[in-house]
Amino acid sequence: MAETKKIRTTVDIYGQQYVIVGTESSSHIRLVASMVDDKMREIGSKNPSLDVSKLAVLTALNAMNDLVKLKDHVEKLESELNRVKE
Amino acid sequence: MAETKKIRTTVDIYGQQYVIVGTESSSHIRLVASMVDDKMREIGSKNPSLDVSKLAVLTALNAMNDLVKLKDHVEKLESELNRVKE
Repeated sequence: MAETKKIRTTVDIYGQQYVIVGTESSSHIRLVASMVDDKMREIGSKNPSLDVSKLAVLTALNAMNDLVKLKDHVEKLESELNRVKE
Repeated sequence: MAETKKIRTTVDIYGQQYVIVGTESSSHIRLVASMVDDKMREIGSKNPSLDVSKLAVLTALNAMNDLVKLKDHVEKLESELNRVKE
């Protein structure tokens, strides 16, 4: 069995460093980290009184919301694709 | 122009209450909040030394990563659908 190579990537999110270990490329991890950083700054600029942990929770909530809605969209696309292929 | 009705939903994530104001139903917001809460507890159980803000940032990173990958999948599905329809 081939061993999956673990890749370590250090990213900076909202002024804090994180070492991410996984199978995804460093460029992919850096892209995702910059999206989280951007979203935290966007939410933070609208809600300057929020502390970092609440800001991060709201960012997670935001991304998870987009994910749930996109999953619905994928289901519709897949069923349309199956219908068209029949 | 019709006014968009704002819905207020109070959710509990990792022991902290958040009031979410938006156009989405309370049941949808509660589902998304429970997914964030579950993911924070999962990451926290594997990394008990992490503080809440780092845990929330890693949860956001996780959801954003899933979102980016799903967006790629949607692009492939849409182009396949367009090809099949031609």
